Amino acid sequence: MLNIALGQFEVKSGRPDLNTQKMLSMIHEAKEKNIDLIIFPEMSIPGYLLGDTWEQSSFLKDCEYHGQQIIQASDTIYIMFGNIAVDWAKFNNDGRVRKYNAFFTAYQGKLLPHPKLPYDFGIKALMPNYREFDDTRHFFSLQKLATELKCPTEDLLAPIELNLNGKTQKVGTLICEDGWSDDYQLAPLEILHKKYDIDFFVNISSSPYTLGKNNKRNRVFAKQAKENKIPLLYVNNTGIQNNGKTIYTFDGSSTVYAADGNIIAYGKPYEEKLICINLAKNSQPLPISIQDEQETAGIFEALTYGIRKFLQNIHMEKVVLGISGGIDSAVAAALYVNILGPKNVLLINMPSIYNSNTTKDLSSKLAKNLGCNYAILPIQEVVDYSIKQFETTPVINLADSSASNLHVSSFVAENIQARDRSARILAGMAASFGGGFTCNANKAETTVGYSTLYGDQSGFLAALADLWKNQVYALAYYLNQEVFHKEVIPQATIDIVPSAELSHNQAVDEGKGDPIKYPYHDYLFRSFVERWKKATPEDILQWYKENRLEAEIGCQAGLVKKYFPTPQEFIEDLERWWNLYSGIAVAKRIQAPPILAISRRAYGFDHRESQNGPYYTVKYKKLKQELLN
Amino acid sequence: MLNIALGQFEVKSGRPDLNTQKMLSMIHEAKEKNIDLIIFPEMSIPGYLLGDTWEQSSFLKDCEYHGQQIIQASDTIYIMFGNIAVDWAKFNNDGRVRKYNAFFTAYQGKLLPHPKLPYDFGIKALMPNYREFDDTRHFFSLQKLATELKCPTEDLLAPIELNLNGKTQKVGTLICEDGWSDDYQLAPLEILHKKYDIDFFVNISSSPYTLGKNNKRNRVFAKQAKENKIPLLYVNNTGIQNNGKTIYTFDGSSTVYAADGNIIAYGKPYEEKLICINLAKNSQPLPISIQDEQETAGIFEALTYGIRKFLQNIHMEKVVLGISGGIDSAVAAALYVNILGPKNVLLINMPSIYNSNTTKDLSSKLAKNLGCNYAILPIQEVVDYSIKQFETTPVINLADSSASNLHVSSFVAENIQARDRSARILAGMAASFGGGFTCNANKAETTVGYSTLYGDQSGFLAALADLWKNQVYALAYYLNQEVFHKEVIPQATIDIVPSAELSHNQAVDEGKGDPIKYPYHDYLFRSFVERWKKATPEDILQWYKENRLEAEIGCQAGLVKKYFPTPQEFIEDLERWWNLYSGIAVAKRIQAPPILAISRRAYGFDHRESQNGPYYTVKYKKLKQELLN
Repeated sequence: MLNIALGQFEVKSGRPDLNTQKMLSMIHEAKEKNIDLIIFPEMSIPGYLLGDTWEQSSFLKDCEYHGQQIIQASDTIYIMFGNIAVDWAKFNNDGRVRKYNAFFTAYQGKLLPHPKLPYDFGIKALMPNYREFDDTRHFFSLQKLATELKCPTEDLLAPIELNLNGKTQKVGTLICEDGWSDDYQLAPLEILHKKYDIDFFVNISSSPYTLGKNNKRNRVFAKQAKENKIPLLYVNNTGIQNNGKTIYTFDGSSTVYAADGNIIAYGKPYEEKLICINLAKNSQPLPISIQDEQETAGIFEALTYGIRKFLQNIHMEKVVLGISGGIDSAVAAALYVNILGPKNVLLINMPSIYNSNTTKDLSSKLAKNLGCNYAILPIQEVVDYSIKQFETTPVINLADSSASNLHVSSFVAENIQARDRSARILAGMAASFGGGFTCNANKAETTVGYSTLYGDQSGFLAALADLWKNQVYALAYYLNQEVFHKEVIPQATIDIVPSAELSHNQAVDEGKGDPIKYPYHDYLFRSFVERWKKATPEDILQWYKENRLEAEIGCQAGLVKKYFPTPQEFIEDLERWWNLYSGIAVAKRIQAPPILAISRRAYGFDHRESQNGPYYTVKYKKLKQELLN
Repeated sequence: MLNIALGQFEVKSGRPDLNTQKMLSMIHEAKEKNIDLIIFPEMSIPGYLLGDTWEQSSFLKDCEYHGQQIIQASDTIYIMFGNIAVDWAKFNNDGRVRKYNAFFTAYQGKLLPHPKLPYDFGIKALMPNYREFDDTRHFFSLQKLATELKCPTEDLLAPIELNLNGKTQKVGTLICEDGWSDDYQLAPLEILHKKYDIDFFVNISSSPYTLGKNNKRNRVFAKQAKENKIPLLYVNNTGIQNNGKTIYTFDGSSTVYAADGNIIAYGKPYEEKLICINLAKNSQPLPISIQDEQETAGIFEALTYGIRKFLQNIHMEKVVLGISGGIDSAVAAALYVNILGPKNVLLINMPSIYNSNTTKDLSSKLAKNLGCNYAILPIQEVVDYSIKQFETTPVINLADSSASNLHVSSFVAENIQARDRSARILAGMAASFGGGFTCNANKAETTVGYSTLYGDQSGFLAALADLWKNQVYALAYYLNQEVFHKEVIPQATIDIVPSAELSHNQAVDEGKGDPIKYPYHDYLFRSFVERWKKATPEDILQWYKENRLEAEIGCQAGLVKKYFPTPQEFIEDLERWWNLYSGIAVAKRIQAPPILAISRRAYGFDHRESQNGPYYTVKYKKLKQELLN
């Protein structure tokens, strides 16, 4: 019999001091509960997403120092934890000091030596280098070490042995990706299982929340436990960590899978908790039933947690939002009011001559429903002044001293309005209110740059920028029904045509609005970004030709024909958005605010892109020719 | 005797069509010159820095298609070129299709099979994953293939044999990093040399310009040739490529090193050219002497080329710059005028009540000297209007219907001015002028976020953001003396104290200005960013204590004592900037414009960072205590 505790806690990236403090207090709690073994997540001391902080030797030494504090606390308890391990005598391939993503086990104030390695720790074998992960940039893998030691990697894997009450427990230790080996030549869990009589597996992870991922993990890990008939303990951290542009929530959801594949212990998402379990070989605890993740509830939970933690991290307690009467700003406002309370939120409506009474009324209604602070600051005077100033100030050609005047086009005037709202009013008001202002762009807009730089594209955080428009609508209903239990977001805001209201061509009362047809474009754009094999116009046109486009991208059947009666219209639309997506939108994303990741492919570090401009393949051009003839 | 041509050309990333076109025309030229072998750079068909475009199957197929065009052109000539190679039946570790960074050799319309690989191409063995390189994210390395094939990597290396005039030539083929193996367990060049009788080595590269790198390459590669007594042909592309936030120039500088280590052929930096050479075993051509790279000349050349190409890529022909009378905007203005011509450049001075006649006069003098377009647009009216609007608009608390007013502090008012200049005037004027506006921030400002978001931190390109202030000054002298051959940048602009002039506390005529003391902080900040082992306050304080700080960071001796008479003042200054560097400045860099890379560590993709806030190690705190007691 073994009393085990999973230390699910909020790992703060780059704060070994605070993480160690929290771990020590959990160790204290575990000792009081007579726990034999406490397990902390991957990289629990330094945190995981640290950028190039790994290149600071003094930071590495500080992590070693804090690791020692944990080891010293292991006098009467086994402690497993993740930390960076440094071999100061060796080097990585970049010439910098050798660093391992390591698995430590301590007992009686000392580290347990690894049976097969020249170190007192285990080493992560599989190094994810896709999505937001950058392991290979910083960490030397077990496979590279095997090459150096001139032996097969398999030979370097072995269980850690714990001795408790006169019995030996063989623990198969894995770090995160080591348990997701489907696409690798090496499967650490299977090797350990084949070569040794493992009592249980421990997988320490630092695994960000992604929509739908927990359902998949439960399938994969339960299967691993069941097929091998060996319990598996998955320990993950909570908190948020970021790669600069992209912010990830870590939901914890630490889980114990029994030898029959049933879940017998579970850490609630985003909750810090010592999850205690009694692991006895022949008496399995009752299985717990865990509901499959619900999309909108999961999104709401991740957004709420992510925004709250991000605000805490940057010490921001007050927020200003520009609200237009439209859906995106309304949903953002409701989220922030729910997180910060109405008195810390200031909503600002900034009408011009183009804003309808409809949306102005909806703005004020939203603010009233939320009971927060509200102000109306018109932009017309400064916009008019600016246009006049730009058109009447002489531009002197100093080569010949001639003077001329510039003309402000209606398109330029639209952007002047958007920048006046954000860079002048929201930025100034937010600073005076003592907080920041938000960017409320959704993922469809972000995909094609349907926004103004230094205008609605700006803010301290783009919390909705990983949600497609249809997910924003779903969230609006969820906020009204499940969070506020009343209609805080006016139904008319949900029903109205989405519009920027920057010119008479976007008059909502005449049903005019955005050029993006969300029921179709949401799905088209998603195929550019989120598909494992990214779709391009060539794929889209091929599917269109074969009449399976709607099925491939997942939108409602019949939409394509409805929106685009002819191939020419279809192709014009496709090229319009592809040009924007791979053109000016890239430039805008480079300067966009940080984005809170929800999907399996958020913009930013998870979706690397170069400002190279649009490209059409030879095959695309042929297909186009064919369809137009 | 062998007639060889190095095809140094401008590779356009993401444009297989254009690259192939250029290669075909060079092949044509080579045939006319009776060349036996033509060599193109690494990834000459797709380009190298492509972000996640590698995940588009249709793009990969398009690269294969264009590769076939090159192969077909090899009827009477050997062609070596780099391209992506796809094994559609296998997978990378991310589950996506298997991609190799490959070396192709074609002759008589067919690819030459590789003697040791199951493919008709060679594979890059060493995968850089540091700085701006991301090879491991996309490409499957030779070492991974060796693991899969269960053989040592050495066994997969072999020369390609060319048969010409009845003679066999054994060519050792390397891709870029394969020739820089010092920090790897594997040295492909040495292995090939030991196992085979190599006639000459070919290194195809896609290697960005970095200040000082060519000097180093000439030392390393000449040594490789000389020690092995085998000629080495280095073929690199020109052009610019980017990782979104960071833009790299590729200088070509293709070089042929003879068996005695002498350079016998050389492609001028940034020039597209077919470099022809006759490689005969016993008659070496005369060595060419290449001057060591000069710092400021090299910087000027890289900036000029990089800006010009970037403007071409985004189809921008006109540029607006805000000029303050200070050094950064003056240097930027001179650079852009030199590139675009004076009639395509509009300089705008935007005075407030805080701007001195001194700087206003210097602005107009600069514009006159450059003979470009000039306009003066004061900001005071809109700034005053905004402050009044913010302070008089009632903020209604809708919970109790009470109203209050915000107060605009003097600090907030400073940022209002900066944003008014950029987001209102420059953005609006640039759009009306038909171009973009520039960001003129230098690297010291960028390091500590001494700038306003949506203010002077904005623009379409931050061309100077990888230059320390002392490099900007050097560039000013260079522009006057070597480029314009007259004083276009007024000497007073060089002599004046750097100042933002946003308040009376920054009055230049009273000698007041920026809080950054560049002669010291340039070097302090550089140690945070550019040192191979990044320095932190712990290192700085240790060096300070040991009286070797100035020597370690490279600034002038005596400055530290002069600026900071006491340890307390020293520590306050250090913490002030460290807090900014790892705090708000990270947030600003996330939203900063693209940066043109010059140094060995530019901000952006080359310097990954997380918004985690400042951290002080345990040892730092002890040192501080010690020094303050």
